[in-house]
Amino acid sequence: MLSKQLTKIVQNLEKKKFREKYNLFKIEGEKLVGELLRSSFKIHSVLAFPEWIERNRQTLSHVNVMEIRQREMAEISNFQSLPEVIALAEIPEYDREDTEIRQTLSLVLNGIQDPGNLGTILRVADWFGIRHVFCDTDCAGVFNPKCVQASMGAIFRVKSYYTDLISLIRNTKNEDFPVFGTFLDGENIYESKLSNRGFIVMGNEGKGISEEIRQWTDRKLTIPSFARNECSTESLNVGVATGIILSEFKRRP
Amino acid sequence: MLSKQLTKIVQNLEKKKFREKYNLFKIEGEKLVGELLRSSFKIHSVLAFPEWIERNRQTLSHVNVMEIRQREMAEISNFQSLPEVIALAEIPEYDREDTEIRQTLSLVLNGIQDPGNLGTILRVADWFGIRHVFCDTDCAGVFNPKCVQASMGAIFRVKSYYTDLISLIRNTKNEDFPVFGTFLDGENIYESKLSNRGFIVMGNEGKGISEEIRQWTDRKLTIPSFARNECSTESLNVGVATGIILSEFKRRP
Repeated sequence: MLSKQLTKIVQNLEKKKFREKYNLFKIEGEKLVGELLRSSFKIHSVLAFPEWIERNRQTLSHVNVMEIRQREMAEISNFQSLPEVIALAEIPEYDREDTEIRQTLSLVLNGIQDPGNLGTILRVADWFGIRHVFCDTDCAGVFNPKCVQASMGAIFRVKSYYTDLISLIRNTKNEDFPVFGTFLDGENIYESKLSNRGFIVMGNEGKGISEEIRQWTDRKLTIPSFARNECSTESLNVGVATGIILSEFKRRP
Repeated sequence: MLSKQLTKIVQNLEKKKFREKYNLFKIEGEKLVGELLRSSFKIHSVLAFPEWIERNRQTLSHVNVMEIRQREMAEISNFQSLPEVIALAEIPEYDREDTEIRQTLSLVLNGIQDPGNLGTILRVADWFGIRHVFCDTDCAGVFNPKCVQASMGAIFRVKSYYTDLISLIRNTKNEDFPVFGTFLDGENIYESKLSNRGFIVMGNEGKGISEEIRQWTDRKLTIPSFARNECSTESLNVGVATGIILSEFKRRP
């Protein structure tokens, strides 16, 4: 039985303000909740249908589980067809692992506005072994339910940090640690010398990378278009562009 | 002034059944309608605010334009903030350009269900110079408003065909025209010999390529994961995967 108070809290977790207030986020559906249960995230509660609880009893020994009904699930779910389970988990705070960061590639996100795109970027990052993603406050929230969903569980593995990107870049960059930016007018990535450490900056869906951050990039990369006619698509979706760029960085020995 | 009848028609164009009945689809927003006006698509009507009409008068000489109000726009728009213009255009029917198809790379889509993913795939195809995309009837509709939107105008340049994929493949494949499929257990794409002609098959978001079509693929490709831990993301978003695969095919001389 779901109290009115908890119903309201779960509904409010759509909004950043309330995620911050309660320090909680929402995870929907069997697959993602399964990943949550295998992660090291702190679980606040699991709200589920009796059948799901029955099937998963073994993994729930230290978890606060609440049995709820269809009608209650309908009030707190975003899905078109109701999930069997919704979980609430605490938003983690990561210590920045500077030693690891200095030896690897990380993503730096400048104003990625769509939570679905942000989730796709985390999923791609996870696939290509990127462990750290830095966001500015113009980015959507990584614990926004749409982002959690689109990340397909990458949210539990890729560490995200909200920070001032200029300070971050200024304090980290040096000859051995280049800052790559992706632009429409950069050098052809296929012919560029890349690196296995550094930052890769991805910009806003409409406006790209801000002028201020552009000045801090050492290398401007572009994915060339192969369209024969000039009036082709102006740009790639930022999730797709991130995928192509990480593929290019990682495939080279 | 928008008649009740036209309002109803526009609203119904969300559904495939009605798009087929009227042979029309909906294009929202200044940017996409601009691309429509520059395309060779047949325009049924343009419904817009007076200011938009004023600004675009020069391009509208042979177009059926209707001035509408905020309240009317709100009834037919999907956007959170109202667009200034919505257009209706005829769904084109393309003759299959078999000669061109036999000399180039085309995409073959097997059950891509999400219209947003389908639109992203068309956008990627456009970027990489792919001119022909074949879909089976399990795919979403390319003229679904969400797909049109996500395509960012690629819908006006990339030709799409709904057809039986097995017959298509059977009639086209030969030694010089390979059929590539993307699987989770194929050969490493980075180490594979690719081709500048053939079909590239992409499968359903959850289930991948069907067993029946798998049997018709000559070459099974995979994008390897670079994650260090085993419990990483199980797969890539199909739009992202299409981007990475086309990037690999096209970047090689």
